[in-house]
Amino acid sequence: MNRRVFNFTAGPSMMPLPVLKRAQEEWLDFEGLGASVIEISHLAPEFKQVVYEVEALLRELLAIPANYRIAMAHGGGAMEFSMVPLNLIATRPARKALYVNSGYFSGRAADEASKYGTVLEVASSEGTTFDHIPALDPARIEADASYLHITTNNTMVGTRWHTFPDTDGVPLVGDATSEILSRPMDISRFGVLYAGAQKNMGTSGLSVAIVREDLLGQALPITPKMINYGQLARDHSLSNTANTFAIYMARLVLEWIKTSGGLAAIEAMNEEKAKLVYDALDRHPGFYKPHAHPEHRSRMNVTFRTPSDDLDAAFVAEGNAEGLYALKGHRFFGGMRASIYNGMPVEGARALANFIDEFARRKG
Amino acid sequence: MNRRVFNFTAGPSMMPLPVLKRAQEEWLDFEGLGASVIEISHLAPEFKQVVYEVEALLRELLAIPANYRIAMAHGGGAMEFSMVPLNLIATRPARKALYVNSGYFSGRAADEASKYGTVLEVASSEGTTFDHIPALDPARIEADASYLHITTNNTMVGTRWHTFPDTDGVPLVGDATSEILSRPMDISRFGVLYAGAQKNMGTSGLSVAIVREDLLGQALPITPKMINYGQLARDHSLSNTANTFAIYMARLVLEWIKTSGGLAAIEAMNEEKAKLVYDALDRHPGFYKPHAHPEHRSRMNVTFRTPSDDLDAAFVAEGNAEGLYALKGHRFFGGMRASIYNGMPVEGARALANFIDEFARRKG
Repeated sequence: MNRRVFNFTAGPSMMPLPVLKRAQEEWLDFEGLGASVIEISHLAPEFKQVVYEVEALLRELLAIPANYRIAMAHGGGAMEFSMVPLNLIATRPARKALYVNSGYFSGRAADEASKYGTVLEVASSEGTTFDHIPALDPARIEADASYLHITTNNTMVGTRWHTFPDTDGVPLVGDATSEILSRPMDISRFGVLYAGAQKNMGTSGLSVAIVREDLLGQALPITPKMINYGQLARDHSLSNTANTFAIYMARLVLEWIKTSGGLAAIEAMNEEKAKLVYDALDRHPGFYKPHAHPEHRSRMNVTFRTPSDDLDAAFVAEGNAEGLYALKGHRFFGGMRASIYNGMPVEGARALANFIDEFARRKG
Repeated sequence: MNRRVFNFTAGPSMMPLPVLKRAQEEWLDFEGLGASVIEISHLAPEFKQVVYEVEALLRELLAIPANYRIAMAHGGGAMEFSMVPLNLIATRPARKALYVNSGYFSGRAADEASKYGTVLEVASSEGTTFDHIPALDPARIEADASYLHITTNNTMVGTRWHTFPDTDGVPLVGDATSEILSRPMDISRFGVLYAGAQKNMGTSGLSVAIVREDLLGQALPITPKMINYGQLARDHSLSNTANTFAIYMARLVLEWIKTSGGLAAIEAMNEEKAKLVYDALDRHPGFYKPHAHPEHRSRMNVTFRTPSDDLDAAFVAEGNAEGLYALKGHRFFGGMRASIYNGMPVEGARALANFIDEFARRKG
């Protein structure tokens, strides 16, 4: 290995180095079996134990209440965009779902839901390029809706919900793909909280949904078996050959979070990292333009621009040359994006902050 | 690492050792990026190149005709059970699908299809516990059917289609999960040939479908975006964050097949392995009872019994003690099953054959 970069990509993203090294060390011999973890059956006792540990660690770290079930599925957040309406829209006769449009992925989630029922956009910040979380007018929350969907952290634009909305009894569904396990979250506020695994919970091709029990068992009859929350919860997510590698990596990541002090310690580290980067940007107000309103800033994805596209390109290229990898913004959005998930060490955020200062001094 | 067992599990299954070692060696630094392959974006140029190489190697090794497209999806064979009807059943107005019931997974595939249209079972060997591939009466092939589905190799019971049926113009759909890449296959016989990756194409959570172009673009409107063949084919299977690790492992496996001499050489090796094991069983006709009719025997999954359940259990336990891992049959089926996919070396089949002989001599 030549070097290890500070990797600011939005996901699949930088992993904690101890997790990667552990996986490498036991790669050819998982728990003395004489086989790799990817060579054993998902139904082998040794692998079932991995699944149970993932469930137990999620319950412990996120303080998941007893009336919630865990369903891990193939596919990530985009598959959940279909799973949520297929599993929940028929919980109320109106088959109606409410969506808050706070970014690109919110829109994709709503598009999928419209295949299965009536979708109402109840708030949007699209008019200002999603630079804030839109206010939700309580009058828009229709009591006969099956659920209200929000994206708790918006990866592309770099905003997040700092306080979750009161939905007056309508189940709140949250897409926490880009912030799950970055801080404690009050699961009891949600009917369903879901996330793709590839940012803070390991590698891609896996999602986890935390589902309140009373919402299970009401999936539309057309729901494919592999994306039925009730089926997955009953089967401990082993309804078919699971993504065994991703579940194994999730176990390593969850163990790393636990030994790092749990989500309170992780949150403190993430606050420190975000402060380093935002403070650096804010020290040069004439040069950098952060995208998100300060009160809606994401701690996971920092989005900003310099005064010109040329300077943006120079920032990305010169950063890359200094070992600050993948600072380019989303292709639909431009500018810069620094994703600083759990796997990014504080030194990486500090290196980026120093580069932000130094680049502004040279070019500003 | 203490030792490496000969691993006869049905999947996820034994991988070629050079593939595992290559993945381990470059685990912390993929192609000089200073990051692991699981830490980079699915849309990074370096990862797109991996996808294109997988597509090109599949085309080369399987001699895929130009009018077929490749769609890789999350989830494996069980997700394909839903994908096939969602994408194909509306290609004909009758919305009718024909299924041959040759084993447990055939039945599961038909169950999924019945959610979306009319399903007819046109042949079955269930009455004799799937010990052969049922004959298909040409009169049962209804011309207005959207497709006819077969399981080309039956993992649980150890049978396979030695010649594929003539379907009189109805598109043939084949589930080749447990035999893909074990031998050359004439893709032009199929409308769709699909397989989960976790046996002969790498690790779990990924499937590949090879789809004739004229069958694309007719998915039911309720099809989730992530399992739409047309969408996936258009996007080079990058419609969302793909299972990047499984695609990377598929590339390593396909490269290993190519450098091993391609599918003709792989087939010769698999024939040799299967002959070693079946010949050993056939040397003790009063002791072992192979399940499959000789003319329908699978080359990938060898199923058999001893004279008693107690001897079956002793065979599995004593085999395990000698480093012959996971010889127990499917939990719904009992007896023994030795899966000898591409990753099983000839020495493993020979070790099993010797143990079969030796066990019969001691216990027979």
